[in-house]
Amino acid sequence: MQKMMVSLGERSYPITIAAGLFSDSASYWPLTAGQSVMIVTNETIAPLYLHSVIEQLFTLGIQADSVILPDGEQYKSLTILDKVFTALLEKPHGRDTTLIALGGGVIGDMTGFAAASYQRGVRFIQMPTTLLSQVDSSVGGKTAVNHPLGKNMIGAFYQPTSVVIDLDCLATLPARELSSGLAEVIKYGVILDQVFFEWLEQNIDALRRLDKKALAYCIKRCCELKAEIVAADEREQGQRALLNLGHTFGHAIEAHMGYGNWLHGEAVAAGMVMAARTAEQLGTFSSSLTERLIALLLRAGLPVKGPHQMSAEDYLPHMMRDKKVLSGELRLVLPTDLGQAEVRSGVGHDTVLAAITKC
Amino acid sequence: MQKMMVSLGERSYPITIAAGLFSDSASYWPLTAGQSVMIVTNETIAPLYLHSVIEQLFTLGIQADSVILPDGEQYKSLTILDKVFTALLEKPHGRDTTLIALGGGVIGDMTGFAAASYQRGVRFIQMPTTLLSQVDSSVGGKTAVNHPLGKNMIGAFYQPTSVVIDLDCLATLPARELSSGLAEVIKYGVILDQVFFEWLEQNIDALRRLDKKALAYCIKRCCELKAEIVAADEREQGQRALLNLGHTFGHAIEAHMGYGNWLHGEAVAAGMVMAARTAEQLGTFSSSLTERLIALLLRAGLPVKGPHQMSAEDYLPHMMRDKKVLSGELRLVLPTDLGQAEVRSGVGHDTVLAAITKC
Ligand SMILES: NC(=O)c1ccc[n+]([C@@H]2O[C@H](COP(=O)([O-])OP(=O)(O)OC[C@H]3O[C@@H](n4cnc5c(N)ncnc54)[C@H](O)[C@@H]3O)[C@@H](O)[C@H]2O)c1
Ligand SMILES: NC(=O)c1ccc[n+]([C@@H]2O[C@H](COP(=O)([O-])OP(=O)(O)OC[C@H]3O[C@@H](n4cnc5c(N)ncnc54)[C@H](O)[C@@H]3O)[C@@H](O)[C@H]2O)c1
Ligand SMILES: [Zn+2]
Ligand SMILES: [Zn+2]
Repeated sequence: MQKMMVSLGERSYPITIAAGLFSDSASYWPLTAGQSVMIVTNETIAPLYLHSVIEQLFTLGIQADSVILPDGEQYKSLTILDKVFTALLEKPHGRDTTLIALGGGVIGDMTGFAAASYQRGVRFIQMPTTLLSQVDSSVGGKTAVNHPLGKNMIGAFYQPTSVVIDLDCLATLPARELSSGLAEVIKYGVILDQVFFEWLEQNIDALRRLDKKALAYCIKRCCELKAEIVAADEREQGQRALLNLGHTFGHAIEAHMGYGNWLHGEAVAAGMVMAARTAEQLGTFSSSLTERLIALLLRAGLPVKGPHQMSAEDYLPHMMRDKKVLSGELRLVLPTDLGQAEVRSGVGHDTVLAAITKC
Repeated sequence: MQKMMVSLGERSYPITIAAGLFSDSASYWPLTAGQSVMIVTNETIAPLYLHSVIEQLFTLGIQADSVILPDGEQYKSLTILDKVFTALLEKPHGRDTTLIALGGGVIGDMTGFAAASYQRGVRFIQMPTTLLSQVDSSVGGKTAVNHPLGKNMIGAFYQPTSVVIDLDCLATLPARELSSGLAEVIKYGVILDQVFFEWLEQNIDALRRLDKKALAYCIKRCCELKAEIVAADEREQGQRALLNLGHTFGHAIEAHMGYGNWLHGEAVAAGMVMAARTAEQLGTFSSSLTERLIALLLRAGLPVKGPHQMSAEDYLPHMMRDKKVLSGELRLVLPTDLGQAEVRSGVGHDTVLAAITKC
């Protein structure tokens, strides 16, 4: 078992990582007998894990209700969020209730925002079931739903009471989703921790075959790295931007291809290679490091170039719409070494085009 | 001009109270040239005040957009809130935008929640246009929308950047709405401040004829009294409950009559008399004080008994559904003297019935 604290003063919370946690009654801290809980999950995850969670809560003498949402990013909306409020009010659940997010990042983001807003704030516990949500949304307190005019536009900064990561649930996660999570894992190595990058080079196969020890260490290390950045920059002004390595390129791929055709991590993987090539063009990153990055991504089952339907010119209009664009200037996160990155302003369009073409 | 600070550490903010503030460019602090603003208002208020607000902002070099919502408590919903997000995203407004709530409590609550949630939090300025919203929602940071299954069930604690109270706008407020606000004003005197209660006995007529000096003092005193309670109890655990004097009875009236037929303050006025009579039954409040309360409420243009269609028995089922009911025990805020009140548990149903019958 791996355990760590995310330190945010009175909003600090523990992350616990191990196999079998969902069916371990100790995982449901700080819930106690007589309390009530609303489990929020989706149609895919409910048949797999809802039963064992409810069973544990029942054993603890906790009244557990559940609401099962449709599965998919397109349901991460205010309209579907309202179903959570309706479920809470039909019972009704009071201010002392606790929401449990049982699912990937979509369920985590929606449940977190529901918890932030229901009666102006109730407790919630994250039980992330995808690698991506385990290494990314567990830390940082970002919650949100999408609006037809923009992703994650409506939400709150709201911290969970506890995060419980059961490694066993990765067994049912589709391989593509696992690889997608590995893209974010590799990203942490590239921007923050050379030693961890090298550890990944040693252990990527173990991770893909779901070796528990490797997974537990890997997830914990990612959460630690993200926690450090978030603690320094809770409301996302400066350093936190480094977490967007590969994302400006990646968002262009996701937007151009239509959300959902390329998984987020797949787009980020290709985007990281593009960022690395851009840094090469600027003379701030060596091509031998790019080759190491490419090799690791490939072993993780990830793409290292964009979709063949997209020309280099297709990227720029999407990239210029990015939040990081300030008064028409392209700002990119670029690696400077393994374990180091910078935010670079005023990168020329030609440089970017040349870099994409090289991928 | 009256000015005060609501002290909440780094979330402290000023309340400014005077005539003519909407058309005074100094009111729009901390906005500066080049910034963008979204004014949220409704169909009733827009033709009266929107123009002068936009004009001032224009003079300051601020880009002002506006969104005009339908008027009414029934539109204080997630669905209508989404119109605010759509308006923001259509432009689009970034994280550095500021929302302005131009209207009564409905607009204030919705705009505050929109500001709390848009891109996980942007600034907002309150420009409350009803007496009720000036003396009540200006302080406390409660924002919310209703759900079909419960009032104010979805929201956030979120503080404005500034509150600007233009006394002139009360000139267009329907007299019933003004009286409704006076019920909350009188409530502050009863629960917290005998001297203020006596000041109201002297000045109630001046307030009703919108004497600016009396209004400014009155609103400021109410905001101070509420600010003291809120500072001691921001997340509403203890003392803040006193602010609910008359509200448990009042909610029964509102619910039984259908929301909107009795205005909130009217129901609270009758409810305060019922609370006073209950305290009389318990021997903790003197009937001569109840008579003074009744006299003041009548002079404020408020009812002092419930609707004739309601029998005493009609109240209890609604009252038992109140949030303050703990495991079947009725908990009521009751006055103990002028300027003093207590939360009383286990008040017998017979006592309550007898008190209502006496009204
Ligand atoms: N809050 C944050 O900090 C943060 C960070 C990163 C991403 N996100 C958000 O997370 C979302 C993406 O998260 P995601 O990649 O987890 O996607 P997801 O939640 O859509 O999950 C991916 C798919 O896997 C299924 N699934 C989940 N767990 C499973 C399991 N154990 N077994 C079988 N199937 C399983 C899901 O039902 C879904 O079909 C996006 O909406 C993104 O905006 C948030
Ligand atoms: N956030 C808080 O702490 C808090 C406190 C008290 C009440 N509230 C909420 O406030 C709402 C009630 O507020 P309200 O009483 O201001 O009601 P309201 O906002 O509905 O306004 C009452 C009516 O007066 C109109 N109006 C407003 N200002 C006017 C003006 N200057 N001239 C002419 N017409 C005007 C409105 O359009 C509306 O028709 C409720 O939803 C309640 O839950 C919130
Ligand atoms: Zn990502
Ligand atoms: Zn009230």
